[in-house]
Amino acid sequence: MRYYVVLRTLGSVSWLLAGFMFVPLLVALYFREPLYVFAVPLTIILIFAYLLTFFFKEKEKEWNNKEAIFIVASTWFVAAVFYAIPYMLEGVPLINALFESMSGVTATGATALTDIESHSKSLLFWRSMTQWLGGMGIIMLFIAILPKIGVAGRQMFRAEVPVLKEEKLHPRIRETAKNLWLIYFVLSIVEFIVLIMAGLSPYDAITHTFTSISCAGFSPYSFNIAAFNDPVVEMILLFFMFLGSVNFALHYKFLLTDRKNIFMDEEFKFYFSIIVSASLVLAYTLFRTDVYSLIDAFRYSSFHVVSILTTTGYATVDFNLWPDSSRFILFLLMFIGGCAGSTSGGVKAVRLLLLLKHANNILFKTIHPKAVTPVRLNGTMVPEGIINSIVSFMVVYIMIFFASSTLLSLLGMDFITSLSASIATLGNVGPGLGLVGPIEGYAAIPDLGKLILIANMWIGRLEVFTVIVLLLPAFWKN
Amino acid sequence: MRYYVVLRTLGSVSWLLAGFMFVPLLVALYFREPLYVFAVPLTIILIFAYLLTFFFKEKEKEWNNKEAIFIVASTWFVAAVFYAIPYMLEGVPLINALFESMSGVTATGATALTDIESHSKSLLFWRSMTQWLGGMGIIMLFIAILPKIGVAGRQMFRAEVPVLKEEKLHPRIRETAKNLWLIYFVLSIVEFIVLIMAGLSPYDAITHTFTSISCAGFSPYSFNIAAFNDPVVEMILLFFMFLGSVNFALHYKFLLTDRKNIFMDEEFKFYFSIIVSASLVLAYTLFRTDVYSLIDAFRYSSFHVVSILTTTGYATVDFNLWPDSSRFILFLLMFIGGCAGSTSGGVKAVRLLLLLKHANNILFKTIHPKAVTPVRLNGTMVPEGIINSIVSFMVVYIMIFFASSTLLSLLGMDFITSLSASIATLGNVGPGLGLVGPIEGYAAIPDLGKLILIANMWIGRLEVFTVIVLLLPAFWKN
Ligand SMILES: [K+]
Ligand SMILES: [K+]
Repeated sequence: MRYYVVLRTLGSVSWLLAGFMFVPLLVALYFREPLYVFAVPLTIILIFAYLLTFFFKEKEKEWNNKEAIFIVASTWFVAAVFYAIPYMLEGVPLINALFESMSGVTATGATALTDIESHSKSLLFWRSMTQWLGGMGIIMLFIAILPKIGVAGRQMFRAEVPVLKEEKLHPRIRETAKNLWLIYFVLSIVEFIVLIMAGLSPYDAITHTFTSISCAGFSPYSFNIAAFNDPVVEMILLFFMFLGSVNFALHYKFLLTDRKNIFMDEEFKFYFSIIVSASLVLAYTLFRTDVYSLIDAFRYSSFHVVSILTTTGYATVDFNLWPDSSRFILFLLMFIGGCAGSTSGGVKAVRLLLLLKHANNILFKTIHPKAVTPVRLNGTMVPEGIINSIVSFMVVYIMIFFASSTLLSLLGMDFITSLSASIATLGNVGPGLGLVGPIEGYAAIPDLGKLILIANMWIGRLEVFTVIVLLLPAFWKN
Repeated sequence: MRYYVVLRTLGSVSWLLAGFMFVPLLVALYFREPLYVFAVPLTIILIFAYLLTFFFKEKEKEWNNKEAIFIVASTWFVAAVFYAIPYMLEGVPLINALFESMSGVTATGATALTDIESHSKSLLFWRSMTQWLGGMGIIMLFIAILPKIGVAGRQMFRAEVPVLKEEKLHPRIRETAKNLWLIYFVLSIVEFIVLIMAGLSPYDAITHTFTSISCAGFSPYSFNIAAFNDPVVEMILLFFMFLGSVNFALHYKFLLTDRKNIFMDEEFKFYFSIIVSASLVLAYTLFRTDVYSLIDAFRYSSFHVVSILTTTGYATVDFNLWPDSSRFILFLLMFIGGCAGSTSGGVKAVRLLLLLKHANNILFKTIHPKAVTPVRLNGTMVPEGIINSIVSFMVVYIMIFFASSTLLSLLGMDFITSLSASIATLGNVGPGLGLVGPIEGYAAIPDLGKLILIANMWIGRLEVFTVIVLLLPAFWKN
């Protein structure tokens, strides 16, 4: 690894990280709130960026695999560290600030704040905005960076090749990334306008636009979306969470080329059928156990299925109070996530779909040993290497899930808290069950546990491999 | 599928199933207990066997894949159905009897009896004996049948090839199977004698020999091994559970050829290191939370780690009362299981080991895209097909685990009960946590739930594929 290349790029990234912070500074100015909350970290980041670009002048556009992986992993890490400062300046303890900050930039939405409303409006605005920026970064990661490096994201890109290539969508990655950002931006503006029309204040509209299209889940209110108690707002947010969780290459396709064939995409069909069937089952459990009327059962089930499956993590009621059968379904959904190339987290529907197809093929081979049955997606053969990559991803993912659950339980957390906190952070969902429900947040987790969960968010958001390979000794050998 | 072949074989198997039942008949005679409990089912099975062999005379020694799979799956099913009759004749309701019977022949050890001591000594003898027979059947399955058919077990056999082939161990499978049965038989006799020497009554010694060497877990006492409260008995049982969970090809090797190199076997080393590290961690959780003194913490932790990891499911205390951190470790161990080619259930250590190696390889490839790194076991390259087979096994296994957990939770079971009952039956462990702990048993599960768990035991014991392929439409096409 050429360290000058890595540090130079980190310097360039830091200018960008600093630049974003002018926005909350203006918001603080508008609300007449203390400016130092943002001015101090802004200054620190600017100094950091200046020093790096001053000492490492040599620009390099071609990174090798290791360098690219290190740059991606450290970008999110550095962002989380710097962006923790505003929380600390408003009195949040170090670990909690780092937790909140990582939860922001990874668009996880798990909160360690004990009294959300006690913080300044500008900080809560910034808290939501970091998630919107995180969402942007994730799309870029999927579409532009991961496919270039050999990370598990690669297969996702290849899986998208049928869409991207056949349609002769812009062949240059930089161009593609720009277009998808544009879609993200336009969708955000549309959502903002619709929320304003639904009666939300501009502040509420923008903070919730930030955290729904990015499948992120922060809200300036401790009661989260329950603060509005408005079915129209819920439906709008549901719709935009859903849009955020769909492959942005499909958005592009839908907007610019083919309006019908989007429903032919196998991942999309698979994902959509999970939403519908899970909503039905969840509504059944809620209705049968007399929690809600039939209509309310559907209202709350569809919202929370979409919220959890898109890995947004919004809540319109405290689902932690639901019976175990209902909570179990939410727990299951945390393992799935949205589509690849979206802002959602989790394992992603396409990985599960390909894994199921692969398993089915091998089963078939048990009966017909000589059958040759390659896995196909959207009619195109999926190379063996991609299947292997997905398998490896799943193995490492499940390992991390079990390891972090075990560590939490060793720290004294109960069964449900350990399991759900692990998957809710690793899958970038946000709220879990037990001690870490949507109302409780993560304040009850001991500091050591919070550090584990911070790592989970970081690892999960960067598609596991990007962080985990840093642990291989081979990574650090030349 | 040629039905006459299948039915003829099932007929021959039924003669055997009937033959075994003369033993409890003698035991009932000895204890002067009612004979009809065994005489009635014995007569029924004899009629069944006679009818099948009368109508289907044509013998066939060469089965194709489908036929072999169907014969294996239906053998365990038919055994479970017939062997349920004695329980029913002692007043156990149909579903509970079926549950107990399936739990017997699959060596699971989950019990649905509400008052074990209320049953006749001969029935409880028979209950343990079915597990010993089941354990025998499982070894035969692994060593002689699964490798012949293309079932997931095949890879296990191939994984053993380094042992079996290099040493020019008997090349003919029938011969191998016979030798391994002999080891099983001899180990059982040794254990029986040792238990007698430790002061157990012949009845206690034989029933617990039956259920420890087979990693099965039934006991004629509702307090299970806690009934003895004797550290020496515990250590003897621990040792023989462990022996039962080791690949029987290794036993053969150890006894007849190479006494040192057994510790070179990678699966064995991996398995052993899990036992040691899990025992240490579990002891730590028990000591730290003031459940036991340091010595007792080690005594109970080592016994229950071995009991759960070997998938025996014995208990010397009610581990369901332990703190969540301790229970979580037992829950994790339920996903692992013993070595391939042993009487233990679960995923098996070698599958996990190969999966970890595979995942590590792919991770390495992320950094060095051009590296060629085949998976090796004991120095031999593991073919791609075996890795694929393991992956497919794991996917289907996890799917069934989640599906049955979901169904249980929909039936109103709580989180911990749903999760632990699923894996404890699918992994053929026996007792779980929550409502299905070692003292409680499975009586509290509703009938529909019991049927699901009966299916789990059946599927888990026959290495998943053998049962699951029956669900593929392709299986029933000619
Ligand atoms: K989220
Ligand atoms: K067992």
